[in-house]
Amino acid sequence: MDYGRGARPEILNRICSLNMQGLSGYGEDEISKASRKKILEECGLHEGMVFFLVGGTQTNAIAIDWLLRPAEGVIAADSGHINVHESGAIESDGHKVIPLGAKDGRLDADDLREYLSEFFADPTWPHMVVPGMVYISQPTELGTLYTLSQLKALRKVCDDFGLKLYIDGARLIYALGSPENNVTLQDLAALADAFYIGGTKCGTLFGEALVIPGPYTDRERTRLFSLIKRHGALLAKGWLTAAQFDVLIGEGLYKKIGKEAVALALKLKAEMQFLGLHPFIDSHTNQQFFILPNKAARQLARTVSFDTWGAPGPTHTRIRLVTDWATTPDTLNQLLATLHRLPL
Amino acid sequence: MDYGRGARPEILNRICSLNMQGLSGYGEDEISKASRKKILEECGLHEGMVFFLVGGTQTNAIAIDWLLRPAEGVIAADSGHINVHESGAIESDGHKVIPLGAKDGRLDADDLREYLSEFFADPTWPHMVVPGMVYISQPTELGTLYTLSQLKALRKVCDDFGLKLYIDGARLIYALGSPENNVTLQDLAALADAFYIGGTKCGTLFGEALVIPGPYTDRERTRLFSLIKRHGALLAKGWLTAAQFDVLIGEGLYKKIGKEAVALALKLKAEMQFLGLHPFIDSHTNQQFFILPNKAARQLARTVSFDTWGAPGPTHTRIRLVTDWATTPDTLNQLLATLHRLPL
Amino acid sequence: MDYGRGARPEILNRICSLNMQGLSGYGEDEISKASRKKILEECGLHEGMVFFLVGGTQTNAIAIDWLLRPAEGVIAADSGHINVHESGAIESDGHKVIPLGAKDGRLDADDLREYLSEFFADPTWPHMVVPGMVYISQPTELGTLYTLSQLKALRKVCDDFGLKLYIDGARLIYALGSPENNVTLQDLAALADAFYIGGTKCGTLFGEALVIPGPYTDRERTRLFSLIKRHGALLAKGWLTAAQFDVLIGEGLYKKIGKEAVALALKLKAEMQFLGLHPFIDSHTNQQFFILPNKAARQLARTVSFDTWGAPGPTHTRIRLVTDWATTPDTLNQLLATLHRLPL
Amino acid sequence: MDYGRGARPEILNRICSLNMQGLSGYGEDEISKASRKKILEECGLHEGMVFFLVGGTQTNAIAIDWLLRPAEGVIAADSGHINVHESGAIESDGHKVIPLGAKDGRLDADDLREYLSEFFADPTWPHMVVPGMVYISQPTELGTLYTLSQLKALRKVCDDFGLKLYIDGARLIYALGSPENNVTLQDLAALADAFYIGGTKCGTLFGEALVIPGPYTDRERTRLFSLIKRHGALLAKGWLTAAQFDVLIGEGLYKKIGKEAVALALKLKAEMQFLGLHPFIDSHTNQQFFILPNKAARQLARTVSFDTWGAPGPTHTRIRLVTDWATTPDTLNQLLATLHRLPL
Repeated sequence: MDYGRGARPEILNRICSLNMQGLSGYGEDEISKASRKKILEECGLHEGMVFFLVGGTQTNAIAIDWLLRPAEGVIAADSGHINVHESGAIESDGHKVIPLGAKDGRLDADDLREYLSEFFADPTWPHMVVPGMVYISQPTELGTLYTLSQLKALRKVCDDFGLKLYIDGARLIYALGSPENNVTLQDLAALADAFYIGGTKCGTLFGEALVIPGPYTDRERTRLFSLIKRHGALLAKGWLTAAQFDVLIGEGLYKKIGKEAVALALKLKAEMQFLGLHPFIDSHTNQQFFILPNKAARQLARTVSFDTWGAPGPTHTRIRLVTDWATTPDTLNQLLATLHRLPL
Repeated sequence: MDYGRGARPEILNRICSLNMQGLSGYGEDEISKASRKKILEECGLHEGMVFFLVGGTQTNAIAIDWLLRPAEGVIAADSGHINVHESGAIESDGHKVIPLGAKDGRLDADDLREYLSEFFADPTWPHMVVPGMVYISQPTELGTLYTLSQLKALRKVCDDFGLKLYIDGARLIYALGSPENNVTLQDLAALADAFYIGGTKCGTLFGEALVIPGPYTDRERTRLFSLIKRHGALLAKGWLTAAQFDVLIGEGLYKKIGKEAVALALKLKAEMQFLGLHPFIDSHTNQQFFILPNKAARQLARTVSFDTWGAPGPTHTRIRLVTDWATTPDTLNQLLATLHRLPL
Repeated sequence: MDYGRGARPEILNRICSLNMQGLSGYGEDEISKASRKKILEECGLHEGMVFFLVGGTQTNAIAIDWLLRPAEGVIAADSGHINVHESGAIESDGHKVIPLGAKDGRLDADDLREYLSEFFADPTWPHMVVPGMVYISQPTELGTLYTLSQLKALRKVCDDFGLKLYIDGARLIYALGSPENNVTLQDLAALADAFYIGGTKCGTLFGEALVIPGPYTDRERTRLFSLIKRHGALLAKGWLTAAQFDVLIGEGLYKKIGKEAVALALKLKAEMQFLGLHPFIDSHTNQQFFILPNKAARQLARTVSFDTWGAPGPTHTRIRLVTDWATTPDTLNQLLATLHRLPL
Repeated sequence: MDYGRGARPEILNRICSLNMQGLSGYGEDEISKASRKKILEECGLHEGMVFFLVGGTQTNAIAIDWLLRPAEGVIAADSGHINVHESGAIESDGHKVIPLGAKDGRLDADDLREYLSEFFADPTWPHMVVPGMVYISQPTELGTLYTLSQLKALRKVCDDFGLKLYIDGARLIYALGSPENNVTLQDLAALADAFYIGGTKCGTLFGEALVIPGPYTDRERTRLFSLIKRHGALLAKGWLTAAQFDVLIGEGLYKKIGKEAVALALKLKAEMQFLGLHPFIDSHTNQQFFILPNKAARQLARTVSFDTWGAPGPTHTRIRLVTDWATTPDTLNQLLATLHRLPL
């Protein structure tokens, strides 16, 4: 998993160096302002809001609550994080998550259009939860990637039906670092009504940067501030998160981390396939998904920390192996050595 | 549809006769008390609470909010009313509706057990919405029936996993009136943690009777009263609903209505099959579901009020025909005559 | 109390005459459409939405949820119904009720301006619940009336601070029928963002008519429809409420009821003052508030139904006596005879 | 303010030393377990749950949502943090905050008893929000302290009326460090149904430790875990907070910090009174509240960071000066020198 360790040393050092400086609270300090500005620039945005939040579930709940009107629902892949692993955080704000069948974690624009067309053709639709937005993750929860043309197609459907588009970027830097990727930060900023750049799994101690492109009024900004506070998500020492993102995004560290971690993951994938193991999802990012004989999975668990994917089956177990900002060529080689010794 | 007309004359007359009597408010009057008592008796209950509410969505939302703890979810058939046609009322109280694939509208006990077993075997389950109850409808939204052994099997699974069982009885009297039915009101009261007996579709102007079997404290009763008030569901003139149920349930009118309406529906079903039309669901209650050529459906719509089931297809339309407390042999014969003239 | 009896005979007769007619569901029928149109006309509105709901708490909750954005609060008199007697219905949608000290149930425009000025002058205001609207009742919960100039002053403050104005008209016809009143339905429609005309306490079996002046899009109308459904407030037989309002408002019955009931209430007030009893609020509508010696209150309770106002004190009890659409000169005379016999 | 700087060096060092260790996620690691155990011991508890959360608003919202049933309200001092400065976080879970007049931030047990007695004597109470718990802060938002006998009296009233008692300890260590204090951690654990020990304002980068005394089942623990997740409050790297509390509470650092910061605050208070300035609240903890001429306040603001308390008045400003874990005798002396130069 990619949240086992603390933070990249460069990032932790930044916190240490600011520790005794004395800064304004609640994100009104100079470091937060500078960090927001750099992120907007990195996203090619002249205008927009950036808020630093603590974790992904929180960020999703706030963004969705912000973008939707009461009683509206949010369409997500059935494997989407908000539909599965957030303990009903979205529903706790009253918004139904409307799951749509997805392939390898990706919502398909044609499927979406078909669902919406049928929805509004059903004469009882006003009695159903009317979708107000589409939620997707880049990369998806299964490590797969949306291409730029896929994203544009989704945006088109959203526009045609008056929906917002929101992108969960918990592991975004590992998409950006993938050789298969053709979607930039600027693309996301141009296509989404809101998205977030994850920190927790990408080298910071914690934190996610919520980006809302476009012009806004003071009133709207205050309302979002209030919404954040009311979700219990306003960090007193807001600069803590901002400073970390200043290093990660503002100074470009994310490019290096993303590229290196994905390269190691792809090497791992190649080696496992060489060993005759089968990936159950074809991921090009830092998460790799393989099926192991139960005995091998149990033996591997003695020395390596990994997640099983669902409950184990009678003979085989689906596992997820993840590289991250802390993975080195050495640790990968040790893992490979261990894999070679497994009873496969 | 079975909510097109007002109320059975006997029921409307009761309201008229009480109109100027002057009664206590909020269900604390003598008529409400007597009506509650009779309903408990009819359900074979020595103890229990009965609350008269206005509509089905409201009743479901209140019952579920009452039975669940915050953050818990409710399992329902994917075709369940709360999952489809209640505009997110359940989610508006923060409870995720967890849809489970169902056959002809019925949740299967084995499927439920399998889902729950896999749920708790998944190591990430505490990050998911933990189900706290099972919601079913008798008859189902598709007019099908649970048998007593099916209900007992569901109850068993609920007990094994610590879940509550709640039964939506919007059209309950049409289950009770079906020749295929072997589940009594007493059975429901013995098996469910709560259920409701529908009035709106069964002969009253409006109203549903929520039944919560078992002993309770004054404090619990007041808390439920508060919950009802806070849901905006407390009728100032509570006796209005109570009086209607006094006739419908207390005086046994429901037995007659249920039996007669279902008999007419089954006659309609037989005749349509005779005409070569295909039911897309095999219903034994007052709702009948058939597939018609689009041209026939359009022609039928000129003289008969019915619902299409989903959007029409390219060549055929799925329709729902419903008998109710107001359907007479004469009106059925007119419908049959119309059907015989359709271009099938 | 004014919700002890059913409905004015004219209104109940209308229901009876429509009982077997067979009408579309959910307020999409012809009667609902016609009734909405007449209400808009009576309010002098060329455009606007009218929705028929079942009760007052429900109507307040829906209107407030509709007018506010998430996280916004609603300012109300501390004696306001939503702040006291709705079991937290407003808070259940996440909106804080912000109580402001009121005199005889009326919010004062100067007090409101002062509160808002201080609120936004406090540097910590973004951490507080930002008010998004003002809730008032006409007549107030204490039977007092806003004058037209008082309402205009409140509207002015709302405009200056960007707030919505909503008016609870549970007993509105008794304001309209008061000789002290100078505020018309047209004035309310011109000044409020939304208001409702009460039926439950004004001659209907149940029901309130929510009026939202101004143009609207189909999308907005559907969203409000959804919100109503999700609040469990959508009556299957929507024509039931509409038909009642067609008589009450559409045909002008409300003018007669309001005038007569208030005239009787003022006669009662005068007689009670003649008997040396003191009103603790100077009401000019159908509710009258007097202080009685405990012994007299207990004796009165044997023959007359009234509410005590708060807990009884050691020597005196505050009581509320209410006239309504069912009060006749005869019943008033009987009450007066009883009062004359009390040990005062 | 006491959240301007990062963390005590001892605490930050602990994070740095654990940074690359690799630990389980979501608080299931060894450090979290050990830290929880030490906190329970420090509170004299054999059994109980400890959860590490990120901030105060979040902690209050979760604890209150956990302790209350839906529709119940929480009584708080009108100056209580949840009633004023949390942007409606409590209401966003549907719970009304019921403000009670307080003296110097303290709820009085007699006032509470009187309120509750009157509440339940009012015949309309089931239509009102029924209070389910009492929220207090130790020290209060105004720096004042509850004595042990005051807390016991509140507990007694809670027991008599079946209410829970919850204590907000955002600045708890500054209560524990006050020479006027006679309430220990063990007392709090014995008296409260839940309370939290604040970290954010007490030497940690962020974090609060929620303590729930008493035995619990696995099921209850999982339900609380879910509730935390759903509030978006579950930190992926839970050990980050746990490790900080291990130093702050587990190793007893809090005693030193609390005592030193309060001693400096009391010295500041004495000097300001010597200068003829008037405290508007008599605080014995780390927050001090004084009234300054506007000119002096403006001059002070050039070199010292402080909060104004509400909007400035025409001639005077109310200010709050705060010492904390980072205040040294030297910084205090500099402040005193500045104060001596003000135009008082």
